[in-house]
Amino acid sequence: MSLIREDETLDDLQLKGIKVIQKKNGFRFGVDAVLLANFAKVKRNNKVIDLCSGTGIIPFIMAGKTEASSITGIEIQEEFVEMANRTSQYNNLNNRINFLHKDLKDLKFLKTLEKAEVVTVNPPYKLQNSGIINPNDKNAIARHEVCCTLEDVIIAARVLLKDNGRLFMVHRPERIVDILTLMRKHKIEPKRVRFIHPKPNKAPNIVLIEGQRDGGAFFKFDDPLYVHEENGDYSKEIKEIYNLGI
Amino acid sequence: MSLIREDETLDDLQLKGIKVIQKKNGFRFGVDAVLLANFAKVKRNNKVIDLCSGTGIIPFIMAGKTEASSITGIEIQEEFVEMANRTSQYNNLNNRINFLHKDLKDLKFLKTLEKAEVVTVNPPYKLQNSGIINPNDKNAIARHEVCCTLEDVIIAARVLLKDNGRLFMVHRPERIVDILTLMRKHKIEPKRVRFIHPKPNKAPNIVLIEGQRDGGAFFKFDDPLYVHEENGDYSKEIKEIYNLGI
Repeated sequence: MSLIREDETLDDLQLKGIKVIQKKNGFRFGVDAVLLANFAKVKRNNKVIDLCSGTGIIPFIMAGKTEASSITGIEIQEEFVEMANRTSQYNNLNNRINFLHKDLKDLKFLKTLEKAEVVTVNPPYKLQNSGIINPNDKNAIARHEVCCTLEDVIIAARVLLKDNGRLFMVHRPERIVDILTLMRKHKIEPKRVRFIHPKPNKAPNIVLIEGQRDGGAFFKFDDPLYVHEENGDYSKEIKEIYNLGI
Repeated sequence: MSLIREDETLDDLQLKGIKVIQKKNGFRFGVDAVLLANFAKVKRNNKVIDLCSGTGIIPFIMAGKTEASSITGIEIQEEFVEMANRTSQYNNLNNRINFLHKDLKDLKFLKTLEKAEVVTVNPPYKLQNSGIINPNDKNAIARHEVCCTLEDVIIAARVLLKDNGRLFMVHRPERIVDILTLMRKHKIEPKRVRFIHPKPNKAPNIVLIEGQRDGGAFFKFDDPLYVHEENGDYSKEIKEIYNLGI
């Protein structure tokens, strides 16, 4: 029996032959996930946990790019978990990557997991606008804070991380005040930020943030990343990320 | 008797004929103050208070560029206050601008002032490194948190501002976590930020922040400002600021 279903596609990451299963009409991975997987620093034999894991794109890129010993994805939507585990099987990565159908608000469960050196998360970006969103809409759950808030994500990361472990998050710049204040509140000290601009003279539209559990206060800005040059071409760095990384 | 002393210079702002007195060998105004004075939004008949006022550069630029009804500078170093009041007299701006020799931590005094629509501040940037700084060093007081901390500045702004009044601050990007968390703590909600980069592919080295007393949570990024182009020339916007603004 094929691991790929009729309503699904198999997309080549151009990274060590890894291919990822996605729904034809569902939530598909985007540049945010790719940038986060490239921003995260993972050392040999690190244990990694990816929250809000969706199709599993971040674990699969990190499996190709790093020497993490194990990568666990946690995802609340059962359909994604089942699909991501098929992707894992398809790529013969079952020994390093697995996906769990769990709610990241279930701290009691999270505490049963082995602590991780690295937590990654591409969380829902948008504040829930009550009344507008159908809680059964799978794309809405991936995009809006229907099932978890930003604070839930940060609390979960704190529970999952070893002392001095690192959280890597991708989000929208307009939420930066919430992100930084909530990270500090829950003692995951913001350490590094990178802003992604659509082009050099435009305001950033993506932010990458690194925090450290119980880290000291020292904060660094990476050089900005421009997706396009002024003339509309992709920038050199984006070309590099997509050639080498995916 | 001349208003200008032997150890002082008189520097032309190229703005409505305003000239500013500065010490030859003392703390002289820089690009930070000019950028802040251009970033602050001041409406007709607004009352403005400038904290950590130094030579008074920010009040003098705003006197030329805005229709503020009055601008009060508060400065802890008596020598600067005396000099800035001479600048005010020299430019016949005594009716709009005055400088007070006060400590911004003296909240009892601050509460006696009429509330302002706008507070501006170019505070000391550096955390105090105990033991290294001579507290009698005038330049150290302007650069390091010897006489006031970032939190003292934000508390003073809260006391001085009207409801929904705006705080405009210039600072260093590596302090952004402290700035945003302290502003939110003291209910001056961060509303807008602009990062200043030395050139397009470099990390920012100056940040401009606007906060609103008891404002709602909505945060906006301005387009970045590059001081230089890639080829080393000043950028168009910097040229405009310096031609029109100073």
